[in-house]
Amino acid sequence: MRVDAGRRDAGDGTDTVSGRPVGSLEPWALELLRSSRVGHLGTAGVDGRPLVVPVCYALLEVGDALEVVSAIDAKPKSSRHPRRLRHVEENPQATLLVDVWDEDWSRLCWVRVEGAARVLRVADPGAQEQRAAALRALEAKYHQYRTVLQLDAQSTPVIALRIDRVQGWRFR
Amino acid sequence: MRVDAGRRDAGDGTDTVSGRPVGSLEPWALELLRSSRVGHLGTAGVDGRPLVVPVCYALLEVGDALEVVSAIDAKPKSSRHPRRLRHVEENPQATLLVDVWDEDWSRLCWVRVEGAARVLRVADPGAQEQRAAALRALEAKYHQYRTVLQLDAQSTPVIALRIDRVQGWRFR
Repeated sequence: MRVDAGRRDAGDGTDTVSGRPVGSLEPWALELLRSSRVGHLGTAGVDGRPLVVPVCYALLEVGDALEVVSAIDAKPKSSRHPRRLRHVEENPQATLLVDVWDEDWSRLCWVRVEGAARVLRVADPGAQEQRAAALRALEAKYHQYRTVLQLDAQSTPVIALRIDRVQGWRFR
Repeated sequence: MRVDAGRRDAGDGTDTVSGRPVGSLEPWALELLRSSRVGHLGTAGVDGRPLVVPVCYALLEVGDALEVVSAIDAKPKSSRHPRRLRHVEENPQATLLVDVWDEDWSRLCWVRVEGAARVLRVADPGAQEQRAAALRALEAKYHQYRTVLQLDAQSTPVIALRIDRVQGWRFR
């Protein structure tokens, strides 16, 4: 992970942390990243067309790295071959934003991670161990994945985004 | 706007509307797009790196077209030259996702618009009328822009995304 940028204090009351390893995020930002129930995954195709998808996600430690994992789950999709999969296969650069909306704008905050993503496919023998770990992490975070919409270990593709940059922002 | 795709019924209980003009969106989707308080703007640079930014936005009718407008407002930013501006200038393709999270997944829904974006700059004389209309639309939607964080007609850049594709999804 990039560790070249330290805390930047713009002197304007904001609390910005950029380009630091996840473990050195301010506690509020790390907690937001760990606990938020929904994230917004950003990808782009080779044609430059961006896509934003709301995702259930979990954090997974893989060796020294931290990854954001999300499943192509069984929620009905508008396509059998979601665009996010094609994007990641064409162009691994991806981002996940986690943010809090509040009518009191002094409470606004967000955390953004960026890095290289890849698809952990069912057909890829080398990806099975990590795929299984990702599904377990998602099931641990979301009771819905254990009850109303179970993840199928035999058929659920997973997108794994290896975090190499992280940025946090809050108004106050 | 593209009108070539009609309603697609996958027979799986979802309600998907893709590629239709905004006016023919299902009422729930149009209402979500009009009323949601926050959207997630997706852009990509020429280097293919995607970006997701939470934005306050408003809809603006411009002739026959419908645009999503958002301002580079005075909320403290992590940069004086936000990446979204560079992205839009490099690559106008952009998207805005508006979604609802709920622990009851049968209530999940989203609307996504896509199209070409451009920056309405203060220095561009040809953009002033539309810039002023965009700022008025944002002030009408967000009381915060009239009170705690006023938009400056002399200095606030606006991103205008002309909608040419729209897609809506809900679980039930």
